[in-house]
Amino acid sequence: MNSMEQTSNTVSKEADFLRALYQDWSDRMVANPNMTIADFRSLFDEWEKPTLEPEGVTYKSDTVGGIDVVWAYPIGCDKSKVLIYTHGGGFAVGSSSSHRKLAGHMAKALGVSSIVLDYRRSPENPFPAQLEDAAAVYQALLASGIHAKDIGTIGDSAGGNLAVASVLKFRELGLELPGFVIAFSPWLDMELTGATLESNDATDALITVPLLQGMIAMFTGGDSTKVRDPLANPLHADFNGYPPLYINAGGAECLLDDARRLHDRALAAGVQATLSVVDGMQHVFPFLAGRAPEADKEIERIAAWYKTLQK
Amino acid sequence: MNSMEQTSNTVSKEADFLRALYQDWSDRMVANPNMTIADFRSLFDEWEKPTLEPEGVTYKSDTVGGIDVVWAYPIGCDKSKVLIYTHGGGFAVGSSSSHRKLAGHMAKALGVSSIVLDYRRSPENPFPAQLEDAAAVYQALLASGIHAKDIGTIGDSAGGNLAVASVLKFRELGLELPGFVIAFSPWLDMELTGATLESNDATDALITVPLLQGMIAMFTGGDSTKVRDPLANPLHADFNGYPPLYINAGGAECLLDDARRLHDRALAAGVQATLSVVDGMQHVFPFLAGRAPEADKEIERIAAWYKTLQK
Repeated sequence: MNSMEQTSNTVSKEADFLRALYQDWSDRMVANPNMTIADFRSLFDEWEKPTLEPEGVTYKSDTVGGIDVVWAYPIGCDKSKVLIYTHGGGFAVGSSSSHRKLAGHMAKALGVSSIVLDYRRSPENPFPAQLEDAAAVYQALLASGIHAKDIGTIGDSAGGNLAVASVLKFRELGLELPGFVIAFSPWLDMELTGATLESNDATDALITVPLLQGMIAMFTGGDSTKVRDPLANPLHADFNGYPPLYINAGGAECLLDDARRLHDRALAAGVQATLSVVDGMQHVFPFLAGRAPEADKEIERIAAWYKTLQK
Repeated sequence: MNSMEQTSNTVSKEADFLRALYQDWSDRMVANPNMTIADFRSLFDEWEKPTLEPEGVTYKSDTVGGIDVVWAYPIGCDKSKVLIYTHGGGFAVGSSSSHRKLAGHMAKALGVSSIVLDYRRSPENPFPAQLEDAAAVYQALLASGIHAKDIGTIGDSAGGNLAVASVLKFRELGLELPGFVIAFSPWLDMELTGATLESNDATDALITVPLLQGMIAMFTGGDSTKVRDPLANPLHADFNGYPPLYINAGGAECLLDDARRLHDRALAAGVQATLSVVDGMQHVFPFLAGRAPEADKEIERIAAWYKTLQK
C-alpha cells in the first residue's frame, strides 16, 4: 500500500497529551519572547514527556565517528542492524534526551539497535554541520563492519529532513546507500510553500510560520540561497535510486504537505515510498509511543513495512 | 568506618561538568528573574546531563500506590529488593526524567531494582504531600510482598530530606521500617542555620540562601512553623531505632553542614551512620556517575557499605 489515510472520528484522550504539551510550549514562548537558545533547548527537551519507557531496552552513552550518541539496545535485538536516529527540533533544539525513548520504541519494534545522534546544532553550527555529523557516524558504522543495507536512517521533523537528506549526502560522498529511510512528520520545505501551513494553522498546537522562519534563519546562517539547496530542502532533490522510504504525518499538522510532497517526489522517481497520515494527530505523534493507541498502531505499521523489506 | 573525608588536590576535568552546569543555571536564573515554575522545571530537568547512561539497565513507566513512577531494572537484578528513589529539586522541581540514570546507576551497583517517584511537587502541593506519596508507594510495595528489610530509601538534596523523613513518616504510620537509608547531599535544615551556607558560598555554584528561601516558602506553603517540624526538617527528629544510614556531600557545597549534622544526630541516637565527604565536589556529585571518577568511586563505596548490611 503506497498511501494510507487513517481516519477516525475521535482522537484518544491519551493522544491529547501531545497537543496539550505543545499548547503549553506555545503559551510559554509567547509569554517569554526573549527566550534564549539555552531556554529553548530546555523547553524542547520536554519532548520526552509524552513517551513512556519502552520496556526491555538498555542504553549506552558513546562516541561514534567523533559524535556523542546514545545507543538503544532492546534485549535480544540484532546488533548488526542499526537505526541512525536524527532527532527533531528545527536543527537547533532537541537532543538524545528528548528522543531516547522514541528511538528505543522504534528499535524494539524492528528488533534492531538504534543510535541517537547529538549532532551539532544551529545557530552555533549551521547547515551542513548536521549532515556532516550524520555522515561521520554512518562511515564509522560501515568501518565497524555494519552492512549498508542493514542500516536505516530515521528522524522526525527537522530530524526527518536529516534522515532523508543524509542519504543524499551519502550518495554525494560515493558511499553505498542504507537499506531504508523513515521520516516522521518531516520538515523539508525551507521556502515555506506548503498549503497546510495555513489550512492546518488552527489545529496545529506547535508549528507556526514565525517559528519555522526563526529556525530557517539559524539553520542557513542567513544565507537565503540555502533554502533551495537539495541537501537543506530535499523537496528539490533527485530521488532516483533512493532506498525504500516510509513517511508519516499527523492530519492536524501544518507540515502535512511536506510529507505529502516528499511522497509524491519519491514515487515520481520510482522509489518504493509509503505515506501514512493519521487523522487528528499533531506533529510527530509517534512521541506518544506507549501512551496512545494512535502512536502504537503506527509503530506496528512501520514494523510490518520493515518486515516486508527483509524478504 | 563512620566518617570518611576523601581529600584530593584536584577535581577531575570530568567532574567540572557539574560545576559548569550549575554556573550556567545560576547565570540563567539571574538573567531571567521572572522564571515561572514551569521554566524552573525545564531548567532543572537538565540535571540528567551529567549522568551517562548506565549500561545494561532497562526501565518501565508505571503507577504504584497511585503515584507515577519509573522503574530501573538492571539486567539480572534481584527484583525482590527495591530502592525507593525520591529525587531532589527543592520539593518543587526535578523528576524521574532528571534522576532516571542516577537511580539506574545505584540499582546496578547494588544489584537491586529502583523506583523513581514522580511525587507531587510544591508549590501546587506543599508539605507533607511528598511524604504521603512516598508512604503510598512504600505501602504498595509491602502489599505486593516486598519485605521492609529489602527496601531502602534514597534521595538527593530535598529528595535526601524525603528519603530520611519518609522513614520517620513510616514509623509514625506504625509500619515496619526499611532496611537502610541513603542521602546524597541532603537538604534538611529549613531554618538555614548551617555554617557552610556562608563558608562555602564562594565555591558552591548552585545553592544560595535566596534560592533555598524560595523553595522553603513553596514547601511550607508560607506556614513558618513547619520549618521546625521534624518531618519537614529532620534535624529536629528523634533517630532512635532508625535504620543504617549512609550520607554523603561535596566538600565545596553550601549544604555540607546539613550532611554533617544529620550524621552527628544519627550517631548520637546510636544509629549505624556513615558520612562520606568528597573534597572539591559540588552538590549531589553522584550525578556525575559514568562520567567522573569521583562519582563512580563514591558509588563503589556505597555498594561496599550495602554489602556489609547484607551479612
